[in-house]
Amino acid sequence: MRQVAILGIGQTKIDEHWNKSLREVGGEAAFAAMQDAGVEKVDSLFVGNMLSSMISGQNQLGAFFSDWIGLWKQEAVKIEAACGSGAAAFRSALMAVASGDVESALVVGVEKMTDKAGRDVTASLATAADADYEVEQGVTFVGINALVMRRYMHEFGWKHEDFAPFSINSHANAMHNPYARLHENINVEKYERSAMVATPINLMDASPIGDGAAAAVIVPAEKVMRKPRILVVASASATDTIAVHSRKDPLFLQAAYLSSRRAYEMAGMAPADIDLFELHDAFSIMAVLSLEACGFAERGQGVRLGLDNRISLQGDLPVCTRGGLKARGHPVGATGMYQIVEVVQQLRGECGRTQVSGAKIGMAQNIGGSGATILTHILRNDG
Amino acid sequence: MRQVAILGIGQTKIDEHWNKSLREVGGEAAFAAMQDAGVEKVDSLFVGNMLSSMISGQNQLGAFFSDWIGLWKQEAVKIEAACGSGAAAFRSALMAVASGDVESALVVGVEKMTDKAGRDVTASLATAADADYEVEQGVTFVGINALVMRRYMHEFGWKHEDFAPFSINSHANAMHNPYARLHENINVEKYERSAMVATPINLMDASPIGDGAAAAVIVPAEKVMRKPRILVVASASATDTIAVHSRKDPLFLQAAYLSSRRAYEMAGMAPADIDLFELHDAFSIMAVLSLEACGFAERGQGVRLGLDNRISLQGDLPVCTRGGLKARGHPVGATGMYQIVEVVQQLRGECGRTQVSGAKIGMAQNIGGSGATILTHILRNDG
Repeated sequence: MRQVAILGIGQTKIDEHWNKSLREVGGEAAFAAMQDAGVEKVDSLFVGNMLSSMISGQNQLGAFFSDWIGLWKQEAVKIEAACGSGAAAFRSALMAVASGDVESALVVGVEKMTDKAGRDVTASLATAADADYEVEQGVTFVGINALVMRRYMHEFGWKHEDFAPFSINSHANAMHNPYARLHENINVEKYERSAMVATPINLMDASPIGDGAAAAVIVPAEKVMRKPRILVVASASATDTIAVHSRKDPLFLQAAYLSSRRAYEMAGMAPADIDLFELHDAFSIMAVLSLEACGFAERGQGVRLGLDNRISLQGDLPVCTRGGLKARGHPVGATGMYQIVEVVQQLRGECGRTQVSGAKIGMAQNIGGSGATILTHILRNDG
Repeated sequence: MRQVAILGIGQTKIDEHWNKSLREVGGEAAFAAMQDAGVEKVDSLFVGNMLSSMISGQNQLGAFFSDWIGLWKQEAVKIEAACGSGAAAFRSALMAVASGDVESALVVGVEKMTDKAGRDVTASLATAADADYEVEQGVTFVGINALVMRRYMHEFGWKHEDFAPFSINSHANAMHNPYARLHENINVEKYERSAMVATPINLMDASPIGDGAAAAVIVPAEKVMRKPRILVVASASATDTIAVHSRKDPLFLQAAYLSSRRAYEMAGMAPADIDLFELHDAFSIMAVLSLEACGFAERGQGVRLGLDNRISLQGDLPVCTRGGLKARGHPVGATGMYQIVEVVQQLRGECGRTQVSGAKIGMAQNIGGSGATILTHILRNDG
C-alpha cells in the first residue's frame, strides 16, 4: 500500500446558502482545493454526501460534480455513510490512490440542507437510524442521542452542566474560523439556559445543520514537493449495530474504539502522540463517548477532560480547534471532510489565533448515525 | 496494484418481494456469496444502492447490512452512482483489496423498489438525471431515453422493429435463468404490439424494475485455491455530462468509450477477445449505443448486430446471456452486481442451456443515468 499525501484543501463557509445551488456549494470547495493543490485535473473524484437525493432530488453526485467542475470523462462516484459520508469518501479515495490504479483524487464532502422546511430535514436525517426498528417508533435522531446522554448521566453521575466545556470550547474556537457557521461566544449560564430540544439535549448540546462543502486533493506521497508535506499515516473504518438498542452497551462507541485502535496501530502511535483531535461533536455526549472510546479517558470520565480544561487550545488534547460540529456547523455529509481540512490547516500552521502550537500529528474522527459507522484518520506533518 | 479474484457469488431472484424487507433481500445474496466463497467473515463490506433512502427511508446501508449479516465491527460503506451503483461498489471494493489494506471484501448490490406506488419510483429514478435542468422540465428518465432513441432512428434511418432482436434475445435467455424476473418468450410481433411507454420506447424496449440483490466475495488472487480461478483483469470508470442535452453528440456514449478503452488497455485485449458481454440494456437503445461505444460496431450500426444474429448465444458476441436488464430485471442499484455474477457464472461454465461455449473472457458494463457514469469490468477464467 503506497503512502498517500494531501496536496491541497478547500472549504466554503457553512451557512444557509439560499443563493447558491448544490452545484455551486460543492464546486466552490472543489475549485479551492484544486487551486491550493496547484492542479487543474485529477484522475478520480469521490463525493461524500448523505441527503441530496431527498433534499435536492439529485443523485449520482459523482458525475454531477465531475460535470460541473469540468472534470467530465474522469471517474467519479458518491459514497454515503450518513454523517460519516465525508470521511468514508476520503477513505475510498485513499484506497484508490494507494492501490496504484489512480494517481490523483479529489474528495469533496458536500451537503445542502436548508432549502427545505425543517421537518423534511429531520425526517431525512432519521434515515441514518434504523428505519424498521428505531424510526418506526417515532424517535428522531436527536431523540436517540438524548436517550444515550440521559443514560450516561444516570450511570456515571454527571449533571447536565458538566458537559458545558465542550460546547463552550467549540464556540470559542469558531470565533476565529471565518468558515464557521456560528460566531458567538457562550458561557455556562447561556449553555444551561438554552432552549431544550430533546431532554437533556438543549440547543447548546446540538450542532447546527447548514450548507457547506470541504475538499482535498490527494496524491502519492512521493509526488509532493510542497512543504510541509502532510501524510495520511492511518485510515481505519469500523461499524457497530445500526440501532443503538441492539448494543450490549449503548454508552460505548465500539466502532470508535476499533477504528482508533487500528489507526494507532497503522501509524505506530498511541493516544498520547496525538497533538489535536477533530472529533465528531454532533451532540456533546458524542464528543465525550468518542474521547473515551479512543483511549483519552476512562469509561464515564470523558466529561472530566472538559472540566479539567484539557480540550482547549492550551490543554494537552485540543479538540474542535476550528469550532467542531457544534459551532463550525454540521452539513452532515461534508463534516468528515471539514475535519480533514482542519487537521491539515493545523499541521500546516495556518490557524492563526486557534493554532495548536507545534502541532505535528492530528487525528480526525467522523461518525455516521449513532455510532454505527466510524472512521478514524491520522495525519502527520512530514516536514 | 495487486491482482484480485472473485471467490464467491450469490444472487436472489428478481421479483416483487413484498414478503421480504430490504434487509432480507440484501442478506440473502450476501449469505449466498459467502457460502459460495466458503468464508464466514470478510474485512470490508461495500454496498451498491441507489434508492433506499427515498423508497425505504433507510440510509447508511453499509452499517445496516454489516449489522444484519453479522459482520458488525467490520468496515462497511455504501456507494451510489444511480443505476451504476452496483459496479461502482464493486470497483471500490477492488481498489481496497488491490491497495493491500483490505484482504477480503464482500460487495452487495441491492435494491427494493416495489414497496411504494409507481409514481414514487418514477420520481425517485429521476434523481439520476439533472434535477435543475432536466427533471425540472418534467421529463422522466424513460422520457430522456425516448428522445435519444427517436434521434438515433432519425439520424441513422432505422425503424422501431429493427431493435426487436435485443429484446427477443434477452427474453429468450431469461427463460433459462431461475433468478430472472420475466420468463416469457417474445417475438417481433409481440415486440411491435407492446404498450407504448414514451414514444418510441414501448414496454418491450424498457427493462422492468424489481427487488433483488447480487453479491460477490473478492480476495487477492494468490489466495484463491478454487478452480477455475476468476480474475478481475480490468476495471475502469468514466463519466460524461449528467444532462444529455449538454453533450456534443447525445448518440455517443463517451463514458462507455473511455471506460471500455481503458479496460481493454489494462487487460491487454481488444473487443474481439471478449467471449460474452453483459451490457446495460435498460432500454434497447442503450444496448445499441453501448455496443457502438465499446468498439463492437460502427456508429449508427449497432442495431445490425441484432439483425445479423450476432448477439445470440450462437453469435460471435453473446450479450445479456442470463436475460439482461430487459428480462432478468433491473433492480437499479443491484444490476451492476448481477452482471458481474452472471459473467462469473459463464466463466465457470455454470449456465446450462444459456452457457456460452468455451467462454474464457467476459465483459460487464454498468451505466448510471443516461450514460453519465459508466463502469467496465473484464473478467478472465484463469484455469
